[in-house]
Amino acid sequence: MSRPPASPGTPPRTEQTNGDVPGADAPGATVWLTGLPSAGKTTIARTAAAELRSAGRRVHILDGDELRAHLTADLGFSRADREANVRRVGFVAELLASHGVTVLVPVIAPYADARAAVRARHEAAGTPYVEVHVATPVEVCAVRDVKGLYARQAAGEISGLTGVDDPYEPPAAPDLRIPAHEQSKAESARALVALLREKGLA
Amino acid sequence: MSRPPASPGTPPRTEQTNGDVPGADAPGATVWLTGLPSAGKTTIARTAAAELRSAGRRVHILDGDELRAHLTADLGFSRADREANVRRVGFVAELLASHGVTVLVPVIAPYADARAAVRARHEAAGTPYVEVHVATPVEVCAVRDVKGLYARQAAGEISGLTGVDDPYEPPAAPDLRIPAHEQSKAESARALVALLREKGLA
Repeated sequence: MSRPPASPGTPPRTEQTNGDVPGADAPGATVWLTGLPSAGKTTIARTAAAELRSAGRRVHILDGDELRAHLTADLGFSRADREANVRRVGFVAELLASHGVTVLVPVIAPYADARAAVRARHEAAGTPYVEVHVATPVEVCAVRDVKGLYARQAAGEISGLTGVDDPYEPPAAPDLRIPAHEQSKAESARALVALLREKGLA
Repeated sequence: MSRPPASPGTPPRTEQTNGDVPGADAPGATVWLTGLPSAGKTTIARTAAAELRSAGRRVHILDGDELRAHLTADLGFSRADREANVRRVGFVAELLASHGVTVLVPVIAPYADARAAVRARHEAAGTPYVEVHVATPVEVCAVRDVKGLYARQAAGEISGLTGVDDPYEPPAAPDLRIPAHEQSKAESARALVALLREKGLA
């Protein structure tokens, strides 16, 4: 009822200042970047977002930490809470994507079932969904340790760290696997944007 | 970081098929319709949505019942849970509105504090926010009783019904007060759309 008609009924959009830029009027999509802490998900999302915006796309990064301050403040890191987190973030991503936004979601999403549910919800709504595995190995992530989580886990200060003492189920068949430890962030972002263009989503 | 630049930096949008329709490229906005159960919030939202869409606007109705199946499934009807509900729905509304969507929110939102927090969040983000009080008196709502809630409360089957045995704090200074019991749904919707046009939001 409250959802506007899917792409066939939606009038094509053009950006006035980008009328001749290919991709500016592509449909929205959710791009979920799953991977371990410090794999490079947020960095790749930000780099890709800049490129997509300069091509006239509306882009939004749904950052897990930012959302935990608002949308998911009540949730912890149990399996049930992690699944609820992915479900809520996926719901919001689909809403935004259904209105023409390219939504980049750099959120761990450790469980295959929860990711599959988000994909299924997008498919049911006719909203494009792309799964990207940022496949930096745990050994590399632990050295990068952007937020100091691996050090704190090793020191016994925290537990339940994904990929160390909490599960991470790697995607069996992601739309794209990015070996972020073997290439620059610019190369990783380019691979992501290239995939979106190939799919007619940018 | 993840938010696109506010209106000054956003390229103006035109709908290809509505290039000459005034209002098609107005900015997004959240329009919160607060009021008692059966006041007519959803009906007015749907009627206004149809008019706005025909004028080329992207519109989304964030329906409270629909959201409770997804985004807020964990929440009940205590004061704390009602406030969390309004906070989450307000967060999502602001995200959508920041990307150019007119977001209509027919959600009771009984507490003035919670509504003020949603407005403050929009103001901080530079996203337009409009509060509409659908001011049908409880006596009329109880006769309409679209979902049978008033009857169930009277029969002692439920408790905590807003406006009967749970608080409703009417807005002191809404942007618009709609006496939905004294006019047709078309008249109510027209008043809402007229206000948005007057504010440059449609």
